[in-house]
Order: sequence, then C-alpha cells, then structure tokens
Amino acid sequence: MDFALSEEQVAVFDMARAFGAEEIAPFARAWEEEGTIPKALWPKLGELGFGGLYVSESSGGAGLSRLDATLVFEALSMACPSVAAFLSIHNMCAKMLDAFGSDDLKARILAPAITMETVLSYCLTEPGSGSDAAALKTRAERTNDGFRLTGTKAFISGGGYSDAYIVMARTGEDGPRGITAFVVEDKAPGLSFGGLEDKMGWRSQPTRQVQFDGCAIPAGNLLGEEGKGFRYAMMGLDGGRLNIAACSLGAAQAALDATLAYMGERRAFGKPIDQFQALQFRLADAEIELQAARTFLRQAAWKLDQGASDATKFCAMAKKLVTEAGSRVADQCLQLHGGYGYLADYGIEKIVRDLRVHQILEGTNEIMRLIVARQMLEARG
Amino acid sequence: MDFALSEEQVAVFDMARAFGAEEIAPFARAWEEEGTIPKALWPKLGELGFGGLYVSESSGGAGLSRLDATLVFEALSMACPSVAAFLSIHNMCAKMLDAFGSDDLKARILAPAITMETVLSYCLTEPGSGSDAAALKTRAERTNDGFRLTGTKAFISGGGYSDAYIVMARTGEDGPRGITAFVVEDKAPGLSFGGLEDKMGWRSQPTRQVQFDGCAIPAGNLLGEEGKGFRYAMMGLDGGRLNIAACSLGAAQAALDATLAYMGERRAFGKPIDQFQALQFRLADAEIELQAARTFLRQAAWKLDQGASDATKFCAMAKKLVTEAGSRVADQCLQLHGGYGYLADYGIEKIVRDLRVHQILEGTNEIMRLIVARQMLEARG
Amino acid sequence: MDFALSEEQVAVFDMARAFGAEEIAPFARAWEEEGTIPKALWPKLGELGFGGLYVSESSGGAGLSRLDATLVFEALSMACPSVAAFLSIHNMCAKMLDAFGSDDLKARILAPAITMETVLSYCLTEPGSGSDAAALKTRAERTNDGFRLTGTKAFISGGGYSDAYIVMARTGEDGPRGITAFVVEDKAPGLSFGGLEDKMGWRSQPTRQVQFDGCAIPAGNLLGEEGKGFRYAMMGLDGGRLNIAACSLGAAQAALDATLAYMGERRAFGKPIDQFQALQFRLADAEIELQAARTFLRQAAWKLDQGASDATKFCAMAKKLVTEAGSRVADQCLQLHGGYGYLADYGIEKIVRDLRVHQILEGTNEIMRLIVARQMLEARG
Amino acid sequence: MDFALSEEQVAVFDMARAFGAEEIAPFARAWEEEGTIPKALWPKLGELGFGGLYVSESSGGAGLSRLDATLVFEALSMACPSVAAFLSIHNMCAKMLDAFGSDDLKARILAPAITMETVLSYCLTEPGSGSDAAALKTRAERTNDGFRLTGTKAFISGGGYSDAYIVMARTGEDGPRGITAFVVEDKAPGLSFGGLEDKMGWRSQPTRQVQFDGCAIPAGNLLGEEGKGFRYAMMGLDGGRLNIAACSLGAAQAALDATLAYMGERRAFGKPIDQFQALQFRLADAEIELQAARTFLRQAAWKLDQGASDATKFCAMAKKLVTEAGSRVADQCLQLHGGYGYLADYGIEKIVRDLRVHQILEGTNEIMRLIVARQMLEARG
Repeated sequence: MDFALSEEQVAVFDMARAFGAEEIAPFARAWEEEGTIPKALWPKLGELGFGGLYVSESSGGAGLSRLDATLVFEALSMACPSVAAFLSIHNMCAKMLDAFGSDDLKARILAPAITMETVLSYCLTEPGSGSDAAALKTRAERTNDGFRLTGTKAFISGGGYSDAYIVMARTGEDGPRGITAFVVEDKAPGLSFGGLEDKMGWRSQPTRQVQFDGCAIPAGNLLGEEGKGFRYAMMGLDGGRLNIAACSLGAAQAALDATLAYMGERRAFGKPIDQFQALQFRLADAEIELQAARTFLRQAAWKLDQGASDATKFCAMAKKLVTEAGSRVADQCLQLHGGYGYLADYGIEKIVRDLRVHQILEGTNEIMRLIVARQMLEARG
Repeated sequence: MDFALSEEQVAVFDMARAFGAEEIAPFARAWEEEGTIPKALWPKLGELGFGGLYVSESSGGAGLSRLDATLVFEALSMACPSVAAFLSIHNMCAKMLDAFGSDDLKARILAPAITMETVLSYCLTEPGSGSDAAALKTRAERTNDGFRLTGTKAFISGGGYSDAYIVMARTGEDGPRGITAFVVEDKAPGLSFGGLEDKMGWRSQPTRQVQFDGCAIPAGNLLGEEGKGFRYAMMGLDGGRLNIAACSLGAAQAALDATLAYMGERRAFGKPIDQFQALQFRLADAEIELQAARTFLRQAAWKLDQGASDATKFCAMAKKLVTEAGSRVADQCLQLHGGYGYLADYGIEKIVRDLRVHQILEGTNEIMRLIVARQMLEARG
Repeated sequence: MDFALSEEQVAVFDMARAFGAEEIAPFARAWEEEGTIPKALWPKLGELGFGGLYVSESSGGAGLSRLDATLVFEALSMACPSVAAFLSIHNMCAKMLDAFGSDDLKARILAPAITMETVLSYCLTEPGSGSDAAALKTRAERTNDGFRLTGTKAFISGGGYSDAYIVMARTGEDGPRGITAFVVEDKAPGLSFGGLEDKMGWRSQPTRQVQFDGCAIPAGNLLGEEGKGFRYAMMGLDGGRLNIAACSLGAAQAALDATLAYMGERRAFGKPIDQFQALQFRLADAEIELQAARTFLRQAAWKLDQGASDATKFCAMAKKLVTEAGSRVADQCLQLHGGYGYLADYGIEKIVRDLRVHQILEGTNEIMRLIVARQMLEARG
Repeated sequence: MDFALSEEQVAVFDMARAFGAEEIAPFARAWEEEGTIPKALWPKLGELGFGGLYVSESSGGAGLSRLDATLVFEALSMACPSVAAFLSIHNMCAKMLDAFGSDDLKARILAPAITMETVLSYCLTEPGSGSDAAALKTRAERTNDGFRLTGTKAFISGGGYSDAYIVMARTGEDGPRGITAFVVEDKAPGLSFGGLEDKMGWRSQPTRQVQFDGCAIPAGNLLGEEGKGFRYAMMGLDGGRLNIAACSLGAAQAALDATLAYMGERRAFGKPIDQFQALQFRLADAEIELQAARTFLRQAAWKLDQGASDATKFCAMAKKLVTEAGSRVADQCLQLHGGYGYLADYGIEKIVRDLRVHQILEGTNEIMRLIVARQMLEARG
C-alpha cells in the first residue's frame, strides 16, 4: 500500500488550490448574491485542463485519473464548493461525450467544452422522478431529420445558462432500457427554461427547470446508442459521486482551517477559546472525521481508476460517508464560531448551506445505502 | 402529575397558531427577502396580549405563566420562527421593565411596548464578549442630568429598527457586579447603527450593531438599581431560553407535519415514499425526538413558574435539548424532501436556517452544558 | 400541567429505593454469579405490595397506577435492573390474571402471586417468532378435560424457576386471532425446560426455553376468552414497555450518580477529573438525556393511566427513547470510569450489560418505530 | 497512491485468519469461561512468527512492518479479540526488548518470547495513574547488585500468568523523565499478584494487579537507559494503538459477517429479515463505517512505517475512530440478531464486551483527542 500522493498529484492539487484562492474565493460571496458565475471564469479553468479532466488526451482532454480529479475538486472547493460542483457536472457531461459521442459531437460539442468556451449541463432528474430516475417521462420521438423532445427536467444546474445539455429521454419501453441520451444545444427550437430556483445554497449556480416543448434536435445529437442512455447516465455517476464528495471534503476542510485560526484569536474568560478542553475535543473529532473521509474517498477513486469490481460500491460508500462528514464538520465549525458563524462575513454558513445538497444529489444518501446493502447481499450469495 | 394543558392553554395555543397561519405564514418568505418585518404586524400581536405576555396584569400585561408563553412561541413558530423569536426578545425586555422599571419607565416605555406600538431590543452581547457576557466593555458615565454611554453592542436583533433598547453597560468594577441596565430610546443623541448583517437565517429580523458614541440618556432611564444590570439580564435569560426552545419546537413540528404530508403524495418506485420502511423509521425517530422535547420544555417552564430551585438548570437543559432536537428534525425533514427540501418554495430550508442560531444565542449550548455540569457538581457537594 | 409527584408517589419511590438499597443491591452481583434470584426475596417484595402493583384492590392487589408502577421499577433498578425487570414480568402476568382470569384462577394462581409466594412468567416468544409474535406455532388442542399444548417458547425469564406460566398458544386460525392464553402450572405433565441460557446480562434471571410436549392442563386454565390471547398479550405490553424503560432509567441514573461521585475522587494531572471541561460536558449531556427520558416516560405512563387514545404510541415512544438513553448514558459512565468501569467491582459494566437487552425485548426498538410510524400515517389520514 | 495489499500481505492475513479459525475460534468461549488462555497456544503462534512480529530479523523476529502486523491482529481478532489483544501486548514488549535491550536481555528474555515459549506483559498503569501515566509511583531503588522495586501496577493483562514483565518505575524525579524500564521475571523475590479481576470482557486474559514489595531484580534487567523508560513506553504505544484498533476492526467484521448470514436465514413477517429496508440501511451503515475504519487504520500504520512526522497523530486518530466504529458496529450487530444477539451462543455479545475496553486502554479515546488537538494547535503555530 502507498498512501502518498505523487509529486504530480500534489502539483495538481496545489495548482487548483492556488487558482481557487485567487480567482474564486474572493468573489464567491458576490457570485452567490448575483446568482450566477461569470462566464469569463470558465476559460481560465479550461486553460488549466479542468474542462475535460478525465477526457482522454486523444480527445483533447487532460486524461487525468479519477483520483487526480478528486484532488482538483477538493482543492477548488476550498474556495467555493458551488463553483467546483458546477465544474464537476460539466466534466461528467464531457466524459460522456468522450466515451460515447460521435466524431461530429466530439468536434462540435466536446472540443469547445474542454476549453470551456462552452459549458455543459446534465439533465436526468424530472419533477416526478428523482431517486427513481429510470421512471423519467420526457419523450424523444423520431422525426424525419432527428428527434422531437417533450417533457421537463428539474433541478438543472446551469439550466438557462449552459451551452448544451445532455438529456436522458425515453425512446422506448418503460424502465431503464427505453432511455436514450441526447445533446440539446442552447437555442434549440422548443427549448425553454423555468424561473431561477431560490435555493438554500449553491446559489451562484443558476438552477432552472429545462422544458422541452416538441424541442427539435438533429439526428446527430443522439449520443451513443439508442436505449443505452440510462446506462451512460449511471456510469457517469460513480465519478460524479466522487467529485461531489470531494467538494464536501474541501469545503469542510476550509471551514475547519478557518475555525482553527479563529479559535486562536477569539478570547473568552481570559484565554483563547482553543484552550477550552471541550472545544479542543470538538476540533479533534472534526479532524479525525475529515481525515478518515479523505482517505476513504481517495480509495474509492483509486478503485474506480483500477476498474475494481467493487468500485461502484466504494463510490457509493464514499459519497455517503464524505458528504455526511463534510456537513457535520461544517456545522460544528459554525457552532465553534458562535454568533459569527451565523454571519455571511465569516464564510462558514455558506459552506453549511452549500454542502447540504450533497447528501441529496448524484443519488441521495438513502440510495447510496441501498446500493451498498444490495451489493452486500449479493456478495453473500 | 398532570400532563394535560388546561382549556385556557389550549385556547392560547390555538389562537396563536391561527394568528400565525393567517397573518405571518403567508408573508414569512417575503419578509425574509425584504430583510424586515412590517411594523404594522406588531400591534395586531399586541391586541392578542402578546406584547407583554408575562408582564403582570397590574402593569397592563397578560400576566401569563412562562409555560403559557412557551405555547405562544411554539404556535407562532409554526408560521415563522424568525418573527416569533423577535417577539420573544421584545417580551424579555418588557418583563425587565415590569420587574425593575420605575413608574415613569413603565408609563413611557413599557405601556406602548405592551400594545406593541413600540418594540424593544435587548443589548448585552458585544463584538468581544459573547459567552463571557460579563466581560462587556460598553461604559456608562454619569453626567449632570443622566448618563453618557460609549461602546458597541453586536448581533442586536432589531438594531436600527426598534423603538427602545435595554442596554447593559458598565458603571463600576470589572465583572458582573459593575454592570447596570439602561433604557436607550431611538433617536437618542450619539446612538447609531452598523450595517444590516447578512445572516444564514433570521433574515426577516433586521440585525445590526448598536453603537454608542457618548450617547446621552436621561437619569430616569437607568433601569432598577445600579450594579444589578447583569443580574437582571441573566434573570431574563431563563425565560428567554424557554422561548427560543419553543421556537425550535414549533418550527420543527411544522417541518415534520409538512414532511409527513409530502411523503404521502410523493411517489417513487411505484408507491408513496411514506411506504418505505427506512423512511418510516426516520419519521418515527423525528416524532419521538420532538415529543420528548416538547414535554421536557414544558416541564422546565413549569419549574420556572413554580420558582423551583433547579429551574435555571432545567431551563438550560431544555434549551440545549430542544434546540438540538429541533435542528436535527428539521435537517431530516429537508433530507426526506429530497431536492425539493433544498428549494425555498417548500419552506423547509428556511426552517433549517432559522433554527440554526438557536443553538448559539441566549447562551450557547456549550454554556448550557457548563451550567448543568456546575449544578451537578454543586448538588453532589 | 403539573410535573410534581404526589407525596404518596414520592413515598412509594423512596420505599422501593430503600428496599433495593438494603435487600437487593448488596447481593446483586452474587446473584448474577449464581445465575438465580433467591426465592426468599419475593415475599418481601410481596409484603410491600409489589407482587400485584396494578392488580385491582378488589383482587387483593395494590391498585397502583401505571405511573406509580414506573416509580417502583425505576427505584428498584437503582439496585439491580435484572431483579426489577423480573418483577415487571411477574406483574404483567398478574395483571392479565386480574383482568381476564376466572374467579378460580384468581384464587388459585393470582392470590399467591400477589403475596409472591409464587412467581409468574410470560411465554409469548418462540424460537422462530420474535418481532412477528403472532406467527407463533405452539398449539393447544382441546382434550376431554382440558387442553394439550405442544411447542416451544424461547427466552423465557423464569423458565424452570417460576411457579406458573402465562402461555400464548394457537387454538385456531393463523395470525393473531387464533391465539388463546393459558395458565400452565409448574409440574404440569409434559412441561420441561431447556438448559440455562448464557446471556450477556440479566444473568441473575434464570432464562430457559419452555417446552410443551403434549403438556396437559385443565380446562379452567384457559385465561379469558378463546381467540383473544394475542390481544391480552399485547395489552400487557404497553405497561411492560413502561416498566422496562423505567428499569433502564433507574439503572442509568445509578450509574450516573456513581460516576459523579467517582469523578470527584479520581484525580489525574493534579486535579479531580470532574474539573476537566470535556468530561463535564459528558456529565451534562448524560444528565440532560436522562432527565428528558424520565419526564417522557412518566408522560407515557400517565397517558396509559388516562386511557388516552395515543397511549400505545406514547408507550412505544418512551420505550424506544428511554431504553436507548439508558444504554447510552451507562456506556458513557463506563467510559468516564476508565479502566475501573470495565471491572465488575465498580458495578457499571453490569448495568451496561443488563440494560442492553431492553432495546430488544417487550418489542424491539425497531418494532417501536414501526408502531409510531404507523400511527403517524394513520393520524394524517 | 496504491490501496492494494501486496500478495505477501494477503498471504499473512490469510494465514492468520486460517489459524484463528482453526486454533482459536472453536475454543474462544471456553477459554473465556476458564478465564485463561492455554499456554500451549502460544508456541503455535510463535511458529508462525507472531511472537516477534516487528522484532528485527537480526534479533530473530519476523521483521514485519506495522501495517503487516495490523493485518495479523485484524485476522486473529475475527476469531477472538481477547486472544489477539493479548498477543499485541506481548509483541509491544518484545519490540521494546529488541529496540533497547542489551544482548543479554535479548538472549535471555527476548529469544524465548519470540518463539513464545514465554509470554511478556507490560506494566505501566497503576491504581492511581491511568491517563496521567507519568505520575506513576512505583519506585526502583538501586541496590548493590541491582534494583529493588516497590509499588503496584494495575489492570495487568497476563499478571500472574506471564513469564516476564516490562515494568516502568521511578528512579528519579517526578514526571516522565524520572522513569526507567525494567524486566521483572516471574518468581522474582517480592513479586506477587492480586486476585483475578472480574471484567466485562477480555475474560480469557487473566488480569491481575502486579505487586512489588521490595522486589529484587539484577542490574542487567534495566532496559535501555535510565530515565528513558517513559519514552520507551510511549514509543510502543503508537504501534499498540494500531494493534488494538485492528482487534476492534477484525472482531466487528466477524460480527457483521455473522449478522449478514443470520439475516438471510432468519425470517419474520413472511420473508428473510435482510429484506426489510430499514435493516438493510443498518447493514449499509455498518459496512461503510468499517470499510472507512479499515482504510484509515492502514494509512496510520503506513505512516508509522514511513516514520512520517504525523505518525503519532494518525495512530491516535485511527485508535479513536476504529475502536469506536468497531464497538458501534458490534452493538448494531447484536441488535440485528434480536434476542439471539444477547445469548452467548451466537458469539456477538462477547464481541461487544471484548471490544468495549479498546476505547479505554492504550490511552483512552479522550487522551487520543487531546493528542490530536494538541498537534492541530501546534501545526497551526
């Protein structure tokens, strides 16, 4: 076993962290208030290779491993988990295009996404289907020269903001096998958006419903093979879960770092509050929880990189454990800040709000438990 | 023992709940966005007798017990804990005026506060003193015709909004015995306010620093006896802790009620999600936690009403237990709503945000533990 | 509301506690090692009226309320929860005889049970049916002059020790409606017992399987009406759950009292360990948890006494909450004793072991959650 | 990073597990009842190289890494954590002899310990000093031909059973620098033992006080340098903490494996209980907790092997996290077994009892938190 990052990995982490500290952190609160992330940010991330982190080098991507990618998301989330998580979704889409896209889609859609001239959104969830994603109802009907989509997608990060959407729609039977993936480009006829969602956190990410009213797309925008869209969507999720967990980890670590600093400065009853034993215990508990979460996350990423047979299980386990640890630690950090933790100025409450959704999306933590339990029962035979 | 509310108590609860449902709940989200509560709301609450809930009837108050009062706060918090908690602070101030104010203060300040033509704020905490409240630095110096206050109070709910402030300031030695309570009326010369605080929750409550720059007040605005201000401030806290706990209780109950309804309507994998056993267990755990919290809170209020020797300990215990239970239940309700729980439309995330500060104010839950532990060691002898 | 015990209730509690301190506590460890409770103990408890606590006075019982009874079990458990819990089972049986027994059964079986010349055991669970009690398979077939029982009961406290057994057996259809209750007296032909069970705790209670091999009993030993045995058995459980919760409460309180004393004497790093803030927080958390549990338990008992429509739900909630609180507190007390907590000499580890089963029996805490959830869904409509 | 065990490591684990399954597990319960481990067991472990796991090969040991050693303890604990933990103590002593012993001590004491013809015990804790180990009072006074020891050691695993004791005693000033390590051989004049301790678990390990009444030992039995005994004792603890954590891990895994099997066979309400969703969630939570604990433990061991500057912190973190996870999982497994979990026959309750002390010894988990917090504050600067 070897628990050390390679020099290259440390460099990737440091680069991402430095970028976040300079280009994201100082503006994160303002972007949250504005409810959007400036489009100008993305090409800078694209320059670092973060637009196609695990897109193959042959397709113009950075060709990083999943483990490398978690380092990027952990580091960027130390600046802002909302921005980092948006980038994760974009990368999930880019990877799907790389893996299953035609040469045409790679040239037209993937290439500018890698440089982040364009950004991509992922459209699976519908108002009536969340955890039970395969029950989705958006239909795609074949027309003379392509497809016509009808239906509504919900909770779409980047809805009304992104340049293209990877949309899972039903082309056949009920259930997962009747689902096909499509690329819907912005401005497609029949494509419209709901109002901006008002959310607890992730407020810099514009989130809207994405509506297809007989939305016409060309035949070439079918992604991969018909009927395999659900499988593609699920394949992206293992990595997406790692990323979202990494976002919880980085942000919680930033909260803990800030708390440790704050407690050395804040005084009560004649001494710095980091000298109170009961509060020291809280710091220790937070540190232990985060360090264990970090190692467990990297193990899951490594398993996915190795193609291990239990990779899906480990990704699910890591997603559950790390996102819950992250939220718990962030909540403790808020408490250790006292009243100041409740103020936006100190940045802790934003982390609590941003991380809260990580227990819900990319598969709720309840679904993670079902995945784990199912695999335990199967492995028992 | 008798665990039943009296008919009068049920009536008070129902009245408060109905008022909240009609006059507060429909507007709570808008007020949060506006960052203020319309002044027109208060006289309506005053008409119900809620402006001086436990002010003696001889002073024009409702003369209710502390237990009665918790019912009011629990019921109002089912509509909005931010509004209800603001009312608690007002009542804490009103009670101090009733208990320690001169006839002049009762006539000038308390009387309009009871009808809620005016609202009152409580100024104890300073930027450098939270848990260690007795370390406060705001000074009050005697002048020819009154006092001149210099210093800054932090996290003041109603700062720059209220009509008068009960201010704890130092007139003597260091520590609790050198502190005196004063009434500072709005527009007093030398009184100014910081900017509106941007907070995680309680957003409809305008919160600002309150600044005294040689702020001149008449001699008659000294409240009670010199040097007893800290004692007065602490006496108010037992009841304040009950109220804030009641606010957590009511809001969490509202979240749980909404969740139970939601789960009966929301379907996944072919059935309402309230049919999934693991989710039923969550409902049961939430119900048990809240019901136990409710009974424990009422016991503490009853002890305070009885003047029990362990009332302070029970108030501290209830504050800790109920505010943590409330936040835990609200967080679970958010999770059980899935992605919808994260949206402002569903009202759950607001409850999570509002309740979070209840673990911090009126004495942090860490201070509550110290109070309890100290009394355990003393009782052991 | 009134949260005070009456003088009579305080007297009952004190009497039970004094009895436990003198007649039980000094011997509890020895009885645990011997694996049995001396029969001579019971008539002393009978003299106090504890053999028929809530048997009606007309039947010779003490006619206490359920709330009174919880005080007895809480107090006795401060000496030994294993002995107290055994008494609870006896009383559950006595109550069934009082409520449903013929005059003959009351004279022959109940009367000596009230004075505790005899002790009673409750036989519901079978090797193959625990939580799903209504699936029991023991059959009772009518013979010329009575019934013949065939089957096996498991985990029977007092198996091979008691003087009579209340046995739920199947006389009809599958499910709860085919079950009838019987009294099987010791020495009945065809009655035998398995080996003494080696258990984690409750070791002073002899526990064995109870086996019926065509066990013949007279017709008069049918208890109440045919086909109602399951209903009777369940009715006893509400109160049984209160009692078992009371046993957790009393024993955990004893552990906490002992811990508080120990921490004042034990020194480390130059001071008594009760001066370490992090350990004080643990004390406070334990105190808060137990006090809330106590009030919640008494409320449930009061509801049962009142015949409240939600009494079953509150008994289930209290059983779950109090038994988990009791075990958590006892475990913390062990930890606060350090290595000494692990030694039998200090009495803490016995409490941890004894209380552990309270989360399992009288309906597992998982079944409690189902009961609560079911009632929530029903109440919602 | 590389999260895979090497083939050699897998082989070591498998060998230890197979040995445990054949030579320990079938007898573990009997040994517990007898209160001792047959001396004949040890040479068989010695043959496998387990008597000097991380003793250097030049001294005749197996020369394994700390990580390798954790695999051995994890695997053996699947059979019995009490036996495995005893072996850990022996190895901690052997390592001290290897690192600091004279050639004479290596020949006389270490060599037979490696083959396990003899077993070693570690004597640090005293009745009045546990967490504050450096406050120990046992004195060693220099005599003409050696030392004379006076004092008492408490909670000594193997007291009155082992062949030699590594004893930390005071030769100089108060505090850690006045402490020296000695080897005291069985039968030394003035060496005696207290009665067998009656403990919650670890019952197959004979535990007694070790008493020195002017106990005379030769000069050559001083271990290493005078005044360095405390440092030596602490150095052993990093690895000891890993081992004890590994014992929790292995035993909890065995409990979980047994529970998974049991739940597939046990039926309720017409289906195997592993089909109930709420119970599946418990399985998943247990699996996630244990898998994360395993990885975190191995990382800590790897850090110790690497001589990482934060190895002590990681060993402390792993000890805290893994021992708590182990106990929590074992407790859940007991609950999932229902009443059967409470019976000795099923082996689960023994695991709960055995693991409980792991949160206390080798430094309580409270001390672990202090170590972690101190290092966080220091690293912050």
